[in-house]
Amino acid sequence: MAKSTFEYVKNFEVDDTLLPNTWIVVRLDGKCFHKFSDDHNFAKPNDIRALKLMNYAAFTILREFNDVLMAFGQSDEYSFIFKKQTTLHKRRSAKLLTTMTSKFTSSYVYHWEKFFENDLLKYPPAFDGRVVLYPSDENLIDYMKWRQADVHINNLYNTSFWTLIQKGKLSPSQAEKRLCGTVSADKNEILFQEFGINYNNEPEIFKRGTLLMRQNMLFNNKAKNIIVDIHDDMLKDKFWKQHSSLLSLKQKEINLYNGPTTDIISEQTSLIIE
Amino acid sequence: MAKSTFEYVKNFEVDDTLLPNTWIVVRLDGKCFHKFSDDHNFAKPNDIRALKLMNYAAFTILREFNDVLMAFGQSDEYSFIFKKQTTLHKRRSAKLLTTMTSKFTSSYVYHWEKFFENDLLKYPPAFDGRVVLYPSDENLIDYMKWRQADVHINNLYNTSFWTLIQKGKLSPSQAEKRLCGTVSADKNEILFQEFGINYNNEPEIFKRGTLLMRQNMLFNNKAKNIIVDIHDDMLKDKFWKQHSSLLSLKQKEINLYNGPTTDIISEQTSLIIE
Amino acid sequence: MAKSTFEYVKNFEVDDTLLPNTWIVVRLDGKCFHKFSDDHNFAKPNDIRALKLMNYAAFTILREFNDVLMAFGQSDEYSFIFKKQTTLHKRRSAKLLTTMTSKFTSSYVYHWEKFFENDLLKYPPAFDGRVVLYPSDENLIDYMKWRQADVHINNLYNTSFWTLIQKGKLSPSQAEKRLCGTVSADKNEILFQEFGINYNNEPEIFKRGTLLMRQNMLFNNKAKNIIVDIHDDMLKDKFWKQHSSLLSLKQKEINLYNGPTTDIISEQTSLIIE
Amino acid sequence: MAKSTFEYVKNFEVDDTLLPNTWIVVRLDGKCFHKFSDDHNFAKPNDIRALKLMNYAAFTILREFNDVLMAFGQSDEYSFIFKKQTTLHKRRSAKLLTTMTSKFTSSYVYHWEKFFENDLLKYPPAFDGRVVLYPSDENLIDYMKWRQADVHINNLYNTSFWTLIQKGKLSPSQAEKRLCGTVSADKNEILFQEFGINYNNEPEIFKRGTLLMRQNMLFNNKAKNIIVDIHDDMLKDKFWKQHSSLLSLKQKEINLYNGPTTDIISEQTSLIIE
Repeated sequence: MAKSTFEYVKNFEVDDTLLPNTWIVVRLDGKCFHKFSDDHNFAKPNDIRALKLMNYAAFTILREFNDVLMAFGQSDEYSFIFKKQTTLHKRRSAKLLTTMTSKFTSSYVYHWEKFFENDLLKYPPAFDGRVVLYPSDENLIDYMKWRQADVHINNLYNTSFWTLIQKGKLSPSQAEKRLCGTVSADKNEILFQEFGINYNNEPEIFKRGTLLMRQNMLFNNKAKNIIVDIHDDMLKDKFWKQHSSLLSLKQKEINLYNGPTTDIISEQTSLIIE
Repeated sequence: MAKSTFEYVKNFEVDDTLLPNTWIVVRLDGKCFHKFSDDHNFAKPNDIRALKLMNYAAFTILREFNDVLMAFGQSDEYSFIFKKQTTLHKRRSAKLLTTMTSKFTSSYVYHWEKFFENDLLKYPPAFDGRVVLYPSDENLIDYMKWRQADVHINNLYNTSFWTLIQKGKLSPSQAEKRLCGTVSADKNEILFQEFGINYNNEPEIFKRGTLLMRQNMLFNNKAKNIIVDIHDDMLKDKFWKQHSSLLSLKQKEINLYNGPTTDIISEQTSLIIE
Repeated sequence: MAKSTFEYVKNFEVDDTLLPNTWIVVRLDGKCFHKFSDDHNFAKPNDIRALKLMNYAAFTILREFNDVLMAFGQSDEYSFIFKKQTTLHKRRSAKLLTTMTSKFTSSYVYHWEKFFENDLLKYPPAFDGRVVLYPSDENLIDYMKWRQADVHINNLYNTSFWTLIQKGKLSPSQAEKRLCGTVSADKNEILFQEFGINYNNEPEIFKRGTLLMRQNMLFNNKAKNIIVDIHDDMLKDKFWKQHSSLLSLKQKEINLYNGPTTDIISEQTSLIIE
Repeated sequence: MAKSTFEYVKNFEVDDTLLPNTWIVVRLDGKCFHKFSDDHNFAKPNDIRALKLMNYAAFTILREFNDVLMAFGQSDEYSFIFKKQTTLHKRRSAKLLTTMTSKFTSSYVYHWEKFFENDLLKYPPAFDGRVVLYPSDENLIDYMKWRQADVHINNLYNTSFWTLIQKGKLSPSQAEKRLCGTVSADKNEILFQEFGINYNNEPEIFKRGTLLMRQNMLFNNKAKNIIVDIHDDMLKDKFWKQHSSLLSLKQKEINLYNGPTTDIISEQTSLIIE
């Protein structure tokens, strides 16, 4: 029963250290979430409970891993961006990837009830994940813009699609046909002209997704570092100028938060006040 | 808001297709499970509820993924072995790794109550994972033997250690000192001479871990394929001869199961009978 | 001028160790050899001097690297197969790849005159290379068959093409047109019926490429290990049965060579006799 | 003889595309050049013929591959830096690596006589190579500084070592002992006090290695782009300021060369004038 006879099999493990001085992005996606959302009667086109659960699961990641700089989520996907110089798990790819995937999944299941209350989780969901490296700040910013542009495109489509079905009484295939070939302006027009819906007034969490990052808040004149959930427009360069210290290595200046007190924020501030 | 301007960032994703015609092993490990098991009052040296939950989570994987040939678990780790010729997710490494990690984690949290009943899960646990390739059957068999030899070594140590504490009233550091430098025979002797414990009579799930695989069972003279949880001695070549069709590509002959009806088995047979 | 300030850049080098217990194949290909062969007036469809130079360059590799088990070449490409258990350069991919590429290129230029005599090398040629891993003997054998089948297909085509031009007085585009859509039997027929050429009688080095491997030869009743250049039919399983010890790890029995004394062989035997 | 039966082996080739938007560095090193330089009676500590051959081989690379931005060489090593946005060979690692290695080796052997004249090349030399990625300009600059600091350290040591032997009549082991534990200042002192050698007056090609890059030269008032071989001090930030356009993506301003007309330069200018 000499363990050492077999231990040579350890040599088949490969080194998967990620290139230093690059931005590490881990993106998670719900597996078969089309079916999962049907099975759990998610509201269409957006279920606020489901989005809040996603955000909360991501929040638990940022709370636990100081090396995660920010996270951006929409629908059933979430991206986690590590600090550029992170040496967490020696930058080993599989270790970082699975830790994020497992912790997120675990939190999603664990905190389900907090958001869905009596609508029970019928079976365990799963997320898959990938790691992507971005060498420059510009590449990373374009990644963030890419994901947020994706929210816009999908949400405008989905809002139009489900409005045509729910209020316009079209069948799904009729709605699809109606939207085929339309551009953004057309969809805005349909929503406004036919259903009196001004897309601009839709909730920002739907239109822009959610960005989690650390900012300062004042408590009795002392700045405390908290994780905030915001829905800012990352497609505008103004955003990146405002948050220029975020991507810089020195990161001396942390922006002061002056947005609304969300559930995620109040959970943290209640602990500070105590 | 042209998504296409940013879409170039997709080109930074790398192809991680795994070498064809090799055994793919995904091994998961509990993260900080020393603390987790303390926080949840796991019995020492083995908590049968925790082991059964691990096995059940692994069982849900085999039930869902026909391309997982077998799985072996012990303590807070589980290894999943894919069919050698699997093309699941096009053999993409991150996809296979995260799917296993996420599904296992999700099941672990979801089914906690089934095994721990009123002992609530206090916070979401996490598992990390890795992928290893083994080119030959011999390498794979040595991998399985390596993990099972590990169970033996750890369990004999832990059984001795905790017996010295629980029955021998030693402190942890005294127990550690007592065992320092001892070989297997010494530990067996301590258990037997001082505490009347015959290590050979310890439950096989503790001594050997659990192997999940598919076998046939007869129902009304018809063979039905079920997933069985067994504790056979994989260190003996006899085991691999008996299961030679398991690793062969043809796999025409599936062994007939004639062991006890475990919970995992009865859950499946109850569905067949209905 | 502290070197240590900059030495961190070494950490950007990645580990590229190749999976143990797999067959490592390095295949080299001439770069722009269409132009190179025109510039050096290579005979069409085969230039025996060019093929012999390729073989000789490969021979210098086998003579120098005992860990190269065999090599197979045709036209402007050569494949080198390492012993399965080789630990040369710790199995680091780039190291093995570039060593083979550089040594082969170097020998090709250095020994040019030996084969081309007064036809001078007009400029330095280049070869590119790749590394491929094969887990099983069957995969490796299929690789060798793949390359040899390629020789057959290309050579039959090229022989027909150039015969139509050289003896049939067709233009290249007429010859191409004539061969378009033909199968092997058609090409054999054209060669035989129209030009009286029995393709089977073509030199084996043209039809089958060249395999370099180590065999034994008797000198004064003592077996000496030499590198032989042969043109056997590797598509036949008989070949692999005859050479079964080649791929086996034990490799106790080395076949006794009883073919013709080629230039490569006589270069070695002359040294033994001295 | 169906080739297609075996063609599946192509699927074992892996995609080795290098991360976009990173600096690709290929570094070549002479294999066993200690022995090679002895076998060819290289002058010690520096053989100007050998250095010029290295530079010339590198020059043929820059002349042929417009995507190679610059190259830096010393002793028996040479580094090639590709343009950051290069898509040569689709950024496939093995392809870039072997093309550089093979072309360099080929040129080295081919042009040997040009520099060594009647001192014949006794056997084919070899170089190995590696690929390293650098995400930022700062990382790349530090790489260049690292290699040039290396020249300084090695050359001061070697100059002292061989002076102690050649002029001081010490044995190699005595010279080694004498230098053991000395810092740069000590070595400068030994050279100056004992042998009247002012290290600062040593040729810059020995002290700093050779950098190849493209600059403009005026011919009849027209700027022509030529490859220059210079020995500037890259450890000074002044150098990188002067050549800031080199690393920038736009690279509109190309520096005007005003150094000496080296052999490499005159070879190019003679073609322009003709």
